Amino acid sequence: MSQNFDVVVIGAGPGGYIAAIRAAQLGLSTACIEGEAYADPKGEPRLGGTCLNVGCIPSKALLASSHMFEDANSHFAGHGIELKSPATIDVAAMQARKNGIVDKMTKGIEFLFRKNKVTLLKGFGAFVGQADGLTQVQITAKDGSTQIVSAKNVIIATGSQARHLPNIAVDNVTIADNEGALAFTEVPKKLGVIGAGVIGLELGSVWRRLGAQVTVLEAMPAFLGAADGAVAKEAKKLFEKQGLKFELGVSIGDVKSDKKGVTVAYKDASGAAQTLSCDKLIVSVGRTPNTASLNLDAVGVKLTERGFIEVNHDCMTNVAGIWAIGDVIPGPMLAHKAEDEGVAVAERIVGQKPHIDYNCIPWVIYTSPEIAWVGQTEEALKAAGREIKTGQFPFMANGRALGMDAADGFVKMIADAQTDEILGVHIIGVGASDLIAEAVVAMEFKAAAEDIARICHPHPSLSEVMREAALAVDKRTLNM
Amino acid sequence: MSQNFDVVVIGAGPGGYIAAIRAAQLGLSTACIEGEAYADPKGEPRLGGTCLNVGCIPSKALLASSHMFEDANSHFAGHGIELKSPATIDVAAMQARKNGIVDKMTKGIEFLFRKNKVTLLKGFGAFVGQADGLTQVQITAKDGSTQIVSAKNVIIATGSQARHLPNIAVDNVTIADNEGALAFTEVPKKLGVIGAGVIGLELGSVWRRLGAQVTVLEAMPAFLGAADGAVAKEAKKLFEKQGLKFELGVSIGDVKSDKKGVTVAYKDASGAAQTLSCDKLIVSVGRTPNTASLNLDAVGVKLTERGFIEVNHDCMTNVAGIWAIGDVIPGPMLAHKAEDEGVAVAERIVGQKPHIDYNCIPWVIYTSPEIAWVGQTEEALKAAGREIKTGQFPFMANGRALGMDAADGFVKMIADAQTDEILGVHIIGVGASDLIAEAVVAMEFKAAAEDIARICHPHPSLSEVMREAALAVDKRTLNM
Repeated sequence: MSQNFDVVVIGAGPGGYIAAIRAAQLGLSTACIEGEAYADPKGEPRLGGTCLNVGCIPSKALLASSHMFEDANSHFAGHGIELKSPATIDVAAMQARKNGIVDKMTKGIEFLFRKNKVTLLKGFGAFVGQADGLTQVQITAKDGSTQIVSAKNVIIATGSQARHLPNIAVDNVTIADNEGALAFTEVPKKLGVIGAGVIGLELGSVWRRLGAQVTVLEAMPAFLGAADGAVAKEAKKLFEKQGLKFELGVSIGDVKSDKKGVTVAYKDASGAAQTLSCDKLIVSVGRTPNTASLNLDAVGVKLTERGFIEVNHDCMTNVAGIWAIGDVIPGPMLAHKAEDEGVAVAERIVGQKPHIDYNCIPWVIYTSPEIAWVGQTEEALKAAGREIKTGQFPFMANGRALGMDAADGFVKMIADAQTDEILGVHIIGVGASDLIAEAVVAMEFKAAAEDIARICHPHPSLSEVMREAALAVDKRTLNM
Repeated sequence: MSQNFDVVVIGAGPGGYIAAIRAAQLGLSTACIEGEAYADPKGEPRLGGTCLNVGCIPSKALLASSHMFEDANSHFAGHGIELKSPATIDVAAMQARKNGIVDKMTKGIEFLFRKNKVTLLKGFGAFVGQADGLTQVQITAKDGSTQIVSAKNVIIATGSQARHLPNIAVDNVTIADNEGALAFTEVPKKLGVIGAGVIGLELGSVWRRLGAQVTVLEAMPAFLGAADGAVAKEAKKLFEKQGLKFELGVSIGDVKSDKKGVTVAYKDASGAAQTLSCDKLIVSVGRTPNTASLNLDAVGVKLTERGFIEVNHDCMTNVAGIWAIGDVIPGPMLAHKAEDEGVAVAERIVGQKPHIDYNCIPWVIYTSPEIAWVGQTEEALKAAGREIKTGQFPFMANGRALGMDAADGFVKMIADAQTDEILGVHIIGVGASDLIAEAVVAMEFKAAAEDIARICHPHPSLSEVMREAALAVDKRTLNM
């Protein structure tokens, strides 16, 4: 006899596990299916998805360790901290710490499932069909055994996987995507990165700080095209100063790897043939939605032209009772976007009317300095013909940032020229990932730039730069 | 002939210099008087007041350096960062860096004065009298020369100075207030601190991290009585774990110092006689307003019973045309409170109607972890008979905090039991000084806890703890 649930969630990444917990909180009988084992030593499925296992969380751990390492060898002297000889890195110990954090958090989700009475179904889920208002899903465990469960509502939260290039075989040892690049067992002397997106920049930064010479090849002619132009320009300047090399507008040709390393043939922006030789290569050219194993045809769920699951504004697919959230649907591939969709879908299932303002979903790149933004860029607003005012204030004029030796970057605020409503906030600077929270709250409340300019900010704090950027919108900064 | 200004500000600390700049921005002819030279080698007056010269800014610089030092010797191993031998501290170099930051920022204010056409009058200001709607102020320069200026409006922004105890002679070498404690030339082996307030905790932390054994004596029976009880309790636990020793409820007796150090006789909370021997002693028992040299009698400005300048809600004294802001008036002695009053008074002078919500002025203590709060404590709300709900969430369940090895502490949110309006947010944890900005904006917009619970927060970020605390108010955390 098959088990029957109110809600079955396929995938226990940040969107899926949160959807399951919220559904259970709302009194729905809920199961969550996960089969991905990642590097689990026993091959057991691990909860948390890409984000927790091979994405956001382990990368932040390595970024923290490598940041400390760089402090030791580049910044200690300025503080009067003396080392007899330069610090060295024990990559295995650094990786063990990272793995410990991932283990702890993935076990934490198992605990949350038990606490919230979410049934964990281990294996990969695929649709069987629909009957009597219920959807049947088959779960195939690692030993090949199967079971079928049925549910009034199914939430697809299978996420995405690294996109690979047709002519480049990723072995996650020499040529790596995010998974391999998070697990290098030694610091490459020369590291190539294809793709100057978030993952390429973050992992390129980790290994550069630890001593690698890093060259990043990017097919697009513009650097960080999604970011505000001023931020992208500043980021490129700062990253180059740190030693990252960028080649934009390239087209990648043959990639050869052997025991000695990797050779990437490419044409540079001028069309000239070039070669990049490196010990390791990271391929970070975007991610593709995980839909292949779902057997969507059995229920008739439609895909978009680009292979994402098609949903309406409420994350409902074209099939009644089947929803989809997170990276597997169109929109930014961000863990917190997936989480919010997970909560919203659970609430919609019980008849609530939650709303997600996609314009108020923040973006973060965890380089040093960090980059974060919410709302729209100056370029997008101008292209839309919007009349705007902008204000910008540098961390260089902020006492806390100077005290921290982290005075690079700025906050840029964009407001409507007439109403003064904040339309976008763009930060490149220390702590941007947390400073952006204030901006998100302000935009959700439709704050004017003057509101932020008039709200008290603690002194000395980095958040004063936000206030000064708001004052700059009205051309009346106090400290510049 | 005396110079005549629309506005004369006495004191160029954070309240005064900001008031002067704002007044000038509003088209008022403005002068700012400053005579305090601090440790300026030429004895020239230095702008920025206590905060910039011997307070917030230099302490943050030393906190950053000492934090890095502690990372090296206590946390590097966990990250796989190897040192051949423990890091050592060159106190002179650390102090030189700190002094460089202070110099840069104090010169920055001189630049701001020139840019905004604020006239800097070097010397100490004192009232002469009033005539024809103008107030006369005499400025006495360091060479003893005097000049008199007159102004339609005078803003008193003379700040405060460290309170000393009658039986303890502060020499700022062996027995130090904030000035001396920021300038120690070597790490004391044993450091005594009288007063477990903000300054005692911050400077006690700096020297503890660098190797001092620190004992803090506090007259009050409660630790951090102004903070929310849960935060104060957690803070004491964490600081003791770090090695700070506290003796609460003491009464200080004789203090003797000689070349070998200092001996403090005191009675402990049980009344038993005790002795603390130390190499250096910090006296941080509060601050008193600077009014003595102002010759207030000449104009009849009234003081409160406790010696502060009496003002109404608009920072107006009892004398027309004379205002006062910052530490010299009642209220929290916080630089950002002074700044906001400075802006507000300048705007009131030109007829604007600015409003400061004193309930939304944040407090910060820059220990590790940091402590910050805004609004009211649970204890104050309960004492006022208010029905409340509270929610608390630990950094231990936050992936970013774990990645940073900084998972101590929590965010506690307090909301009205019926309306859900946020009444207080109390943070002890990494980054509290910046995380609080979101809470201040939320409270200024009269946000409900549910608003913060529904607003997207980037993952992974420390600000997620704020959201989870908001969810905890409704007993529906997602990650705990």
